Amino acid sequence: MSKPYVRLNKDDAAVLLVDHQTGLLSLVRDIQPDTFKNNVLALADLAKYFKLPTILTTSFEDGPNGPLVPELKEIFPDAPYIARPGQINAWDNEDFVKAIKATGKKQLIVAGVVTEVCVAFPVLSALAEDYEVFVVADASGTFNPLTRDAAWDRMSAAGAQMMTWFGLACELHRDWRNDVEGLGTLFSNHIPDYRNLINSYNTLTSKR
Amino acid sequence: MSKPYVRLNKDDAAVLLVDHQTGLLSLVRDIQPDTFKNNVLALADLAKYFKLPTILTTSFEDGPNGPLVPELKEIFPDAPYIARPGQINAWDNEDFVKAIKATGKKQLIVAGVVTEVCVAFPVLSALAEDYEVFVVADASGTFNPLTRDAAWDRMSAAGAQMMTWFGLACELHRDWRNDVEGLGTLFSNHIPDYRNLINSYNTLTSKR
Amino acid sequence: MSKPYVRLNKDDAAVLLVDHQTGLLSLVRDIQPDTFKNNVLALADLAKYFKLPTILTTSFEDGPNGPLVPELKEIFPDAPYIARPGQINAWDNEDFVKAIKATGKKQLIVAGVVTEVCVAFPVLSALAEDYEVFVVADASGTFNPLTRDAAWDRMSAAGAQMMTWFGLACELHRDWRNDVEGLGTLFSNHIPDYRNLINSYNTLTSKR
Amino acid sequence: MSKPYVRLNKDDAAVLLVDHQTGLLSLVRDIQPDTFKNNVLALADLAKYFKLPTILTTSFEDGPNGPLVPELKEIFPDAPYIARPGQINAWDNEDFVKAIKATGKKQLIVAGVVTEVCVAFPVLSALAEDYEVFVVADASGTFNPLTRDAAWDRMSAAGAQMMTWFGLACELHRDWRNDVEGLGTLFSNHIPDYRNLINSYNTLTSKR
Amino acid sequence: MSKPYVRLNKDDAAVLLVDHQTGLLSLVRDIQPDTFKNNVLALADLAKYFKLPTILTTSFEDGPNGPLVPELKEIFPDAPYIARPGQINAWDNEDFVKAIKATGKKQLIVAGVVTEVCVAFPVLSALAEDYEVFVVADASGTFNPLTRDAAWDRMSAAGAQMMTWFGLACELHRDWRNDVEGLGTLFSNHIPDYRNLINSYNTLTSKR
Amino acid sequence: MSKPYVRLNKDDAAVLLVDHQTGLLSLVRDIQPDTFKNNVLALADLAKYFKLPTILTTSFEDGPNGPLVPELKEIFPDAPYIARPGQINAWDNEDFVKAIKATGKKQLIVAGVVTEVCVAFPVLSALAEDYEVFVVADASGTFNPLTRDAAWDRMSAAGAQMMTWFGLACELHRDWRNDVEGLGTLFSNHIPDYRNLINSYNTLTSKR
Amino acid sequence: MSKPYVRLNKDDAAVLLVDHQTGLLSLVRDIQPDTFKNNVLALADLAKYFKLPTILTTSFEDGPNGPLVPELKEIFPDAPYIARPGQINAWDNEDFVKAIKATGKKQLIVAGVVTEVCVAFPVLSALAEDYEVFVVADASGTFNPLTRDAAWDRMSAAGAQMMTWFGLACELHRDWRNDVEGLGTLFSNHIPDYRNLINSYNTLTSKR
Amino acid sequence: MSKPYVRLNKDDAAVLLVDHQTGLLSLVRDIQPDTFKNNVLALADLAKYFKLPTILTTSFEDGPNGPLVPELKEIFPDAPYIARPGQINAWDNEDFVKAIKATGKKQLIVAGVVTEVCVAFPVLSALAEDYEVFVVADASGTFNPLTRDAAWDRMSAAGAQMMTWFGLACELHRDWRNDVEGLGTLFSNHIPDYRNLINSYNTLTSKR
Repeated sequence: MSKPYVRLNKDDAAVLLVDHQTGLLSLVRDIQPDTFKNNVLALADLAKYFKLPTILTTSFEDGPNGPLVPELKEIFPDAPYIARPGQINAWDNEDFVKAIKATGKKQLIVAGVVTEVCVAFPVLSALAEDYEVFVVADASGTFNPLTRDAAWDRMSAAGAQMMTWFGLACELHRDWRNDVEGLGTLFSNHIPDYRNLINSYNTLTSKR
Repeated sequence: MSKPYVRLNKDDAAVLLVDHQTGLLSLVRDIQPDTFKNNVLALADLAKYFKLPTILTTSFEDGPNGPLVPELKEIFPDAPYIARPGQINAWDNEDFVKAIKATGKKQLIVAGVVTEVCVAFPVLSALAEDYEVFVVADASGTFNPLTRDAAWDRMSAAGAQMMTWFGLACELHRDWRNDVEGLGTLFSNHIPDYRNLINSYNTLTSKR
Repeated sequence: MSKPYVRLNKDDAAVLLVDHQTGLLSLVRDIQPDTFKNNVLALADLAKYFKLPTILTTSFEDGPNGPLVPELKEIFPDAPYIARPGQINAWDNEDFVKAIKATGKKQLIVAGVVTEVCVAFPVLSALAEDYEVFVVADASGTFNPLTRDAAWDRMSAAGAQMMTWFGLACELHRDWRNDVEGLGTLFSNHIPDYRNLINSYNTLTSKR
Repeated sequence: MSKPYVRLNKDDAAVLLVDHQTGLLSLVRDIQPDTFKNNVLALADLAKYFKLPTILTTSFEDGPNGPLVPELKEIFPDAPYIARPGQINAWDNEDFVKAIKATGKKQLIVAGVVTEVCVAFPVLSALAEDYEVFVVADASGTFNPLTRDAAWDRMSAAGAQMMTWFGLACELHRDWRNDVEGLGTLFSNHIPDYRNLINSYNTLTSKR
Repeated sequence: MSKPYVRLNKDDAAVLLVDHQTGLLSLVRDIQPDTFKNNVLALADLAKYFKLPTILTTSFEDGPNGPLVPELKEIFPDAPYIARPGQINAWDNEDFVKAIKATGKKQLIVAGVVTEVCVAFPVLSALAEDYEVFVVADASGTFNPLTRDAAWDRMSAAGAQMMTWFGLACELHRDWRNDVEGLGTLFSNHIPDYRNLINSYNTLTSKR
Repeated sequence: MSKPYVRLNKDDAAVLLVDHQTGLLSLVRDIQPDTFKNNVLALADLAKYFKLPTILTTSFEDGPNGPLVPELKEIFPDAPYIARPGQINAWDNEDFVKAIKATGKKQLIVAGVVTEVCVAFPVLSALAEDYEVFVVADASGTFNPLTRDAAWDRMSAAGAQMMTWFGLACELHRDWRNDVEGLGTLFSNHIPDYRNLINSYNTLTSKR
Repeated sequence: MSKPYVRLNKDDAAVLLVDHQTGLLSLVRDIQPDTFKNNVLALADLAKYFKLPTILTTSFEDGPNGPLVPELKEIFPDAPYIARPGQINAWDNEDFVKAIKATGKKQLIVAGVVTEVCVAFPVLSALAEDYEVFVVADASGTFNPLTRDAAWDRMSAAGAQMMTWFGLACELHRDWRNDVEGLGTLFSNHIPDYRNLINSYNTLTSKR
Repeated sequence: MSKPYVRLNKDDAAVLLVDHQTGLLSLVRDIQPDTFKNNVLALADLAKYFKLPTILTTSFEDGPNGPLVPELKEIFPDAPYIARPGQINAWDNEDFVKAIKATGKKQLIVAGVVTEVCVAFPVLSALAEDYEVFVVADASGTFNPLTRDAAWDRMSAAGAQMMTWFGLACELHRDWRNDVEGLGTLFSNHIPDYRNLINSYNTLTSKR
């Protein structure tokens, strides 16, 4: 009766970043802007760190929606980049789906703006094609909490796994011993409380 | 195990606006009044824009519940209008169900006041008759968030899809190229942040 | 895949009021006290109005938990009243279950304090015996919203229908024409906004 | 269609306390610190009171994550204590799983820091091996409510039962008559409102 | 440099109830309706209990603002009642000011709807004429907390004392021994937590 | 010791609208966008209704801050409009101060974006030159409530009167009889709850 | 124009604990119970640590208000203890004022339940007699935040200094070197985050 | 009667950063960590940008309070740095006050952790010596909003000006033309919404 435990695996996963555009970001009001920016960049950094194939896409970027935030383009200079000419559901764009299929991955990690459209639509489409889908809830934003709740309800009921970037990183990494410093750096760069713990620790242990 | 992806289609959908009456609206306290008014009118405008058959109904409109808000009557002067003589669940009113059946649509988009009664009851009845039902959560209002949460739980568990008006518009429109100006105008009229994006954009591009 | 629509029927329903005791009520902090008191009394009044068999029970009422709130005893002077000597789950008390079975009803409407124990335990037990169970979420209270959310999750997943007293009244009444004045009085006594609507209406129509 | 009622039984249950470490606790911001400390100690006290086999584990405790909070070590001086050398999901640590299996229990009560990782990962793994899993939601903490909501969604969908420590204690105890003073003391030590009730009661009855 | 302590005295005080009308009450959204209704009636009951001269006034009561809530008329059947023909600041109405002066009191207790207009305007006018003014903040309501905060700032800076009905009752009563039962009844009728304390106490002491 | 009651007078007052620009508006997050837009337009409408001299100014409107929102330009086509070339405090711009002095008014009503800069700076400067200053708190917006609170503290301590648009309209109008329909229309256009009251009222009275 | 800096001095200060009674505590809803209990005990511990003369008082402790919480009696077994027979403002009780005068201190630190009555009334009375008064805001509680805000406004305007227990402890201690361990223990016992810092620190430094 | 307008002047101002230490930061819970980190670094960047003399100080940095956050040391490598051996109020440390006097500035901009102690104490001391003091409220943090409110009340009443970093930057800069790019960069680095505006603008204008 219950959803089985589908565990993220860094060899099986690809990341889809949908419509993090400078104009559309002004619509996001369910997460504070400093926090949201940090979450999106944390997700990008972890995608890069785990070498997950990553696909960028934008909606109508020459109009008021604005260009992709430059940081994402800089972190993924060679990633497939699909500037959709009009399709609202990215999955309706053939190049986007082709790029996904080209990765050969069956686990899709999805984040975007706004949650109930740019995230939910391709998530639902991917589930319908039997992908395992993981929503990065805190790197996705929308107008208000009510809209977010409705979008989560729809995606979760359809089989998506709701996660946040930190859990994603931990599930992909599996064991600190795979690379203590790498994961520690990722956390230090994106979690001020963790950075403080590390700085306190380093100060004390360097005195030994 | 999961709900399949039932995608809204403008050729298959009808809109039911249930009991947006001047008296009953004073009961709505889970959404701020400016926002709620805007959401209801946005839903009405999109129904008109996509030419979705729309059905209006009221409960006991000669009593304290008050008349239908005049704006809805103005936007849909020719829509079926069922002033129910007493049935609380609109689905218990034969004329209402007949009007729905007359549209020949299988996808029902429902909003109303109050959520757990005027929305939930016909939603549950429609699901029981195998309609595909989409709740417009932000154009439906009730006494408080606790009541709303309970109503969502009941409707979602019964198979309804929880949405908000913006997602609805996007899923119906599918592709910006179908009509950039039409959709842009809808958004500009009901999303101040989007209107600002458009105005900034137009100002800059008109200077080119 | 979805829960079917189980509709409340006044001929099939009984009400269980569990542990609304003067001491235990000091634990309730997820609803404000004025609102909670009003909701519990509204539920009691509707049970009486619809002549639903009602069963009262208390936990350890001679100790710090305190006596049943006197108003409930007054509204239901002849109702079965089970002062449980120790069982925390009321369903573990034979007299309580006997009293329920004696009503011959298959739909149980349950409210109590605290939600995750005094409500959830008998709700889960009743569902396990195939009763149709309706939780009156706003006449049930507990320590904080987090605890409430967990309790709702457990009850809803087990098949309970989450409702609030106003929806209950509407689903039981079905049609205003069954008794306009009776339902109006119930609403006027427990919904200040509705009372205001009625008073405004009466004032204006009395001047005609 | 619904989850069956799986009832906690003190003879069948073991408790897993995962990563309540002095450093990691600074990450917890979805519950206030006084409340969280009280909840964790209440859980520990109830595990001891009901003589539930309890297993302690930490993640990387020599680094910035810090040592286990000393109170837990003091309450459970003889409990299996697995300081994991690197596995993030405790279930990936053989000693941890062996310790669980050695208890012979099929019901696992889990709490930890942070919810979406240190709790959710072993919860999902245990469910996949057909354990009955009970999450102690208020003795588990994480970065913010959004992250918590996502973690709950994932665990609940996979079949875990969401509970809080008070409900746990009540479901395990079953009947006040099993030990009035023991349960009363547990409540008095961890619920100020209940302590006040007892003190008021004792003062008045001692005057009789 | 500081405001001196101006202490309420039941022989020096009069109560002004401004525009608690059935229509205007639908504008109040900074306090929940159940709580607000209770606060207004508690204020009315205490005015009657302390035999404070009380003056009722309404704004344009034949129009959409609606009639005075009937409860207030019933509690004060013989109070001066000024139905203002148009003045928004009640102090601009000569009859209202005359009625106040006729009481011979120098301490004015003011509550009304909405706070920044119907309360603040006469409060500022009364302060300008050297009355000692006490605002009953929780029996006054307005559109939202931001508006309330601005209104408080203006009134407090002008010298008004911000209070709530419970503090008012306590400052007027001075000593429980003046009438234990009277004050206890007032509290029991309007503070559910206090009523519970009294009921627990009475139950235990009646068993002695 | 207290601020005296400085009462707004429509013959003495001018309105300053500072930097309501399409870009800057994306920074406003202490008020929801639908509500904020409504408040700004309500203020503009009331300025026009009361024929208050109104002055528009923008900061660096050719850059990212964007143009003035077009609605304001449309409502005040002939108002002095000062596009400041760089001064952050509008009062540092000679043309702006000249335009104010040209009105001959001593009461200044100020709103703008963002509160602690574009509003607070000219407010403090105007107070320093002995103007009577009224801040329209709900037509002014900024990054978050903490910033707003600090800005209010600074302005209020310096002698500004904190108000919201509705109170402003009421204090300027003084008496409904001066123009019932005009004020009613203003309220109906900007307060959905009031519009509902009016619609309910008109419907009932038209039936007489 | 501003309040001068009145600095707490441990040789000049006395502590007044007003009406922390087991019944009255059920009225406190503006602070969570775990946090409130901790704050009150932290204040008591610091009073003892700094050897500040402390005075206990209760209101009508034989009735529903209940006895003083036993912990306070245990911490201050020899403190003056005034069980007031009826005076609501403790300052109206001669024994209470005598006990204060007997301390010879001019700085009064006050906490109690409920804030707007049991705290505010003696605070205002003490200010009127030229004491320097420090309110311990987080060891004082009341019905809701609105009531608290009104009480703070009244006390602050009258000249009281608003503080919380941690600031009090720091201002009294002045310099860590006066007793590092003593202050550290106080903080460790009442601030979980600080306790964690100390435990992390001790663990790391003990390994050197 | 009112505070005069004391305007920040970049030639008259110095910045005091008090106790932003890796351990103490774990106590800050009235602002989210991402936001707080950003605010502190924004303040540091603006101090550097405007070349304001800046003074760093820490409390007991070898103990659990932890070292100064490394970023601040990096931004101000040559700033006076006073590691206080024990004084809680930094103003009690002679070196700290000497360093301030050495700057020759009379306007002090203060931020720190925690607000009611490390900020409020030196703020009150500086005001007592007639400095003009500006509190950077959003670069100062403490345990919870209640504590913050009390600290603000005490500082504001004593004459401090409450500000946030953005207002500070604007008041210091006075006119965009002094350096458009410099100020724009500061905003772009610390206000995601502003960065988006700039990126949208640059994209569009580069296409001209």
